[in-house]
Amino acid sequence: MSILPHPVRPAVVLLSGGLDSTVCLAIAQREGYEVHALSFRYGQRHQYELTCAQRIAQARQVASHTIIELDLGVFGGSALTDASIPVPKPQSAEEIGRSIPVTYVPARNTIFLSIALALAETRGAQEIFIGVNSLDYSGYPDCRPEFIRAFETMANLATKRAIEQHHTIRINTPLIEMTKAEIVATGMRLGVDFSLTLSCYDPLIGGIPCGSCDACRLRQRGFQDAGFLDPAIPKV
Amino acid sequence: MSILPHPVRPAVVLLSGGLDSTVCLAIAQREGYEVHALSFRYGQRHQYELTCAQRIAQARQVASHTIIELDLGVFGGSALTDASIPVPKPQSAEEIGRSIPVTYVPARNTIFLSIALALAETRGAQEIFIGVNSLDYSGYPDCRPEFIRAFETMANLATKRAIEQHHTIRINTPLIEMTKAEIVATGMRLGVDFSLTLSCYDPLIGGIPCGSCDACRLRQRGFQDAGFLDPAIPKV
Repeated sequence: MSILPHPVRPAVVLLSGGLDSTVCLAIAQREGYEVHALSFRYGQRHQYELTCAQRIAQARQVASHTIIELDLGVFGGSALTDASIPVPKPQSAEEIGRSIPVTYVPARNTIFLSIALALAETRGAQEIFIGVNSLDYSGYPDCRPEFIRAFETMANLATKRAIEQHHTIRINTPLIEMTKAEIVATGMRLGVDFSLTLSCYDPLIGGIPCGSCDACRLRQRGFQDAGFLDPAIPKV
Repeated sequence: MSILPHPVRPAVVLLSGGLDSTVCLAIAQREGYEVHALSFRYGQRHQYELTCAQRIAQARQVASHTIIELDLGVFGGSALTDASIPVPKPQSAEEIGRSIPVTYVPARNTIFLSIALALAETRGAQEIFIGVNSLDYSGYPDCRPEFIRAFETMANLATKRAIEQHHTIRINTPLIEMTKAEIVATGMRLGVDFSLTLSCYDPLIGGIPCGSCDACRLRQRGFQDAGFLDPAIPKV
């Protein structure tokens, strides 16, 4: 009796270097996918998250890691790409998500998923993973399930493979209904090294999280509720 | 009696520097839109079409012209971005469109429309114009009406303006059901200077059209059927 090898199933995973996308990558690997990670240098205020993405890609031994240069800062209008707009600092996680904040980058997930679709087509991948979350999130329109489903419908009409080979594209959002605490707990179970991740929108020099932006507040509450210490926070 | 000024209605127009996108731009202007043109340096084999786009934008006095740098060549797989894949040279226009050709660039219109959506959001534009055509075309999946409608549905779930201000996004495809001859005739009527446009996939040095790729064949037949001489062809 011989054991047949599993066929390679490639998947494209959007990897920002933050907590959510890293747990999403670990889930794709646990499901048996060969991961092609995709990151962007898109004019974000700081480059630390890209350094984190590169370390995570290496630590998790992905099949490939593509970094696309794309200056979304030319459009302006977001605190994440325009240094003249301050990043808001809420008093607590409860204040977050009541309206779409200035950290929203116009059409960012649409653009990132479109480029992931191109990479998926050239890698022969039917699966795209994105770590969006519609519970503990900042209120971005392009993190909602209805947006993801509409993108998937469009993607299945957009590509040569989808048309000629009936190659169905799936947009996988394994975190979309998890709380931040559940995301942290899932990552811990899958052996994610959270010390490699950076969630902060506005880190200090050296990539130290500010501790008070939306992303830091949500992360703190996530670790607290899950009952873990955040290994990325320097222990003074 | 005072005459009220027309309110400015901004529109984003994708402008490649070719015949179709230039006629599309002229249609948007005739409909009274203030045009924000958008072009891409996306790793295409030749840069002449960008030079054409810049001249057209200037000649038609658009409100703004944004050129985005985005290297789609990293994905490979297309004769338009990979110099090692030859551009096919059909014997006539009748041979074109039977299958999706190697000039297809993975997910190109999806990516271009996504970035147009970001520009539209920052310019306060509800209208995006793209010169796709589903009759005299090369068989690309992302030129079909069903793709455009699915993109529009997705776009209306994607952005802050769409959600907070019920700001409907429309993807306008005025050429989608025109023959190439009708596109040429429309451009002539609207005063398009076709000598500024370049359609060729594989021009000679100096931006002289090769005369035998898909795009050249379709353009030749368009001018012929419309009964005009193509002013962009050097008269030897």
